Amino acid sequence: MNNNHLIIMAGGVGSRFWPMSTAEMPKQFIDVLGIGKSMIQMTVERFDGVIPQENVWVVTSQRYKNIVMEQLPMVPETQILLEPCMRNTAPCIEYVSRKIYARYPDANLVFSPADHIVMDVPEFKRVISESLRFASNRAAILTLGMMPSRPETGYGYIKARDNENGTIKKVEAFKEKPDINTAKAYLHDGGYYWNAGIFVWNVKMVVDTIASLVPDLHAVFDRITPSFYTDNEQDMVNEYFPTCPNISIDYAVMEKADEVYVYPASFGWSDLGTWGSLYTHLPLDDSNNAVVGQEVKMVDCNNCVVHTPMEKKVVIQGLNGYIVAESRNTLLICRKEDEQLIKEWQK
Amino acid sequence: MNNNHLIIMAGGVGSRFWPMSTAEMPKQFIDVLGIGKSMIQMTVERFDGVIPQENVWVVTSQRYKNIVMEQLPMVPETQILLEPCMRNTAPCIEYVSRKIYARYPDANLVFSPADHIVMDVPEFKRVISESLRFASNRAAILTLGMMPSRPETGYGYIKARDNENGTIKKVEAFKEKPDINTAKAYLHDGGYYWNAGIFVWNVKMVVDTIASLVPDLHAVFDRITPSFYTDNEQDMVNEYFPTCPNISIDYAVMEKADEVYVYPASFGWSDLGTWGSLYTHLPLDDSNNAVVGQEVKMVDCNNCVVHTPMEKKVVIQGLNGYIVAESRNTLLICRKEDEQLIKEWQK
Repeated sequence: MNNNHLIIMAGGVGSRFWPMSTAEMPKQFIDVLGIGKSMIQMTVERFDGVIPQENVWVVTSQRYKNIVMEQLPMVPETQILLEPCMRNTAPCIEYVSRKIYARYPDANLVFSPADHIVMDVPEFKRVISESLRFASNRAAILTLGMMPSRPETGYGYIKARDNENGTIKKVEAFKEKPDINTAKAYLHDGGYYWNAGIFVWNVKMVVDTIASLVPDLHAVFDRITPSFYTDNEQDMVNEYFPTCPNISIDYAVMEKADEVYVYPASFGWSDLGTWGSLYTHLPLDDSNNAVVGQEVKMVDCNNCVVHTPMEKKVVIQGLNGYIVAESRNTLLICRKEDEQLIKEWQK
Repeated sequence: MNNNHLIIMAGGVGSRFWPMSTAEMPKQFIDVLGIGKSMIQMTVERFDGVIPQENVWVVTSQRYKNIVMEQLPMVPETQILLEPCMRNTAPCIEYVSRKIYARYPDANLVFSPADHIVMDVPEFKRVISESLRFASNRAAILTLGMMPSRPETGYGYIKARDNENGTIKKVEAFKEKPDINTAKAYLHDGGYYWNAGIFVWNVKMVVDTIASLVPDLHAVFDRITPSFYTDNEQDMVNEYFPTCPNISIDYAVMEKADEVYVYPASFGWSDLGTWGSLYTHLPLDDSNNAVVGQEVKMVDCNNCVVHTPMEKKVVIQGLNGYIVAESRNTLLICRKEDEQLIKEWQK
């Protein structure tokens, strides 16, 4: 029996990709790349052969339950966990870990965001398999660190200890998103990796570590645990989950635990967090336009990124460097260089 | 009893305003100005007090019958005439004139396009009333000529005879759409008026003139006439109308008849034939954007014309001099100055 489990964190409401991504239908459930699969479907698919389909868990919120069931029909309903409110990552991880621990106390867990992309899937599988072997027999938390290729200010960084031998290194510190000069120094100094938000633990280690470092959180789930896998579970979660401390796993655990490791890897990862990064991951036409949509005619346009519903007929003429996005009865046209303003315009 | 009748020619498929106007829902049935009324509804409304509602006739095609009935519920079904195919304006005018003549042999007729706009409606009513008085007792065809305000190349012109006294003048010639130098000469020389496509006749004059100048056409309707106002009418029209000569009223009649007059007038008329002309008829915001749509946010935009469905949420940023139009699941973004290319892009 395969003891490896995948937990997909799918509660985000990705507002940077508005209007393609909206609170009703966030990015993880959208076919962002126009290849016929949503981000969460691609996420499950890239674990194929490493983690059995029946060991996939999704943590999301009530409003997305039906979308998850529709897009991931192989995931049993009892493995779709619904947070009644946002309490950051630590309560989310505690919930799913305690539930898995109750039935699979020897499980190894891979936590993964639902809305990132990976270009080199075979390498990804190799790294995940090795990570699972490492974490299965060790009281250790293993994070994946991406080899940085540029001084990116949009990601957090993981600093490895100096003078570590071997592929997998002990973590010295987690760093918040840096400014550009700091990011350049990280790249120059070496030993800094992008934090991809993917980590691998065995479930006993998760439960023990949270019990030790966040006892309040552990105590909340001592009350909920007896209801797991019963009709009463959601009611109990709805009642007690809101009393959890609002705290991230990075702050609550990663930065305090002793046995935290980083696996420096390189498999064409991107959090696809901006239109600009989407643009770099889409095929370009002769005029450097990236177009997702089946009936889009580009006339005298350059360097644009277009994302429209498949059945929509679109003609765009005379634009250079623009985003044109339509979804759910909302249309956005704006300069690519001004995409950081998108959040404001949604108000 | 009021003997004045209005005939609205509503068979066009206005492709220049694509995608706002499509073959399924052409311009005359659209609320182009965003004021809650379609062009054809505004057309009927501006004859209020001059021509009784029960004397309104519409000539269109089968595919638009339901739209006409919905938008003009006051028009009896027997006064909605359906052309089974496009045979230019002469057969259309012969059909409706013969049908009116059969029941109202003393009628005076105003023919009007369905998709033009008039800014000064009181002046329009005055001109129409006077034109009806002129035409009711005379074997004459009276056309309305618009006082030209610029060397417009998008309209045909009517040349009045020189040395004519009085408001209403005899026509010397009808001129096709001119090139820009010719249009400038017309404006300089005077006596040239834009052909608004509005004309006023008494019905006996129409029937007699067509009988004399286009006997083939008259003969076709000799066969159809007995079926008017019976259940058999549409079948007869469907059978014989396609045998009509394909000919315009201008060519077949206007340019050959003796008693053709022009009434030079000025009531803020436009055929609203281009996005550019629509732009000049819409209110502008502080940045000279003309926006039809209720949820449109313009950020850092100038000189744009936007026409989107009322319920559509739209954000447009950083555009100068563009058309943004959406309708019926089709989106167009293009430079205003390139609108003459719109027909090509529809293919």
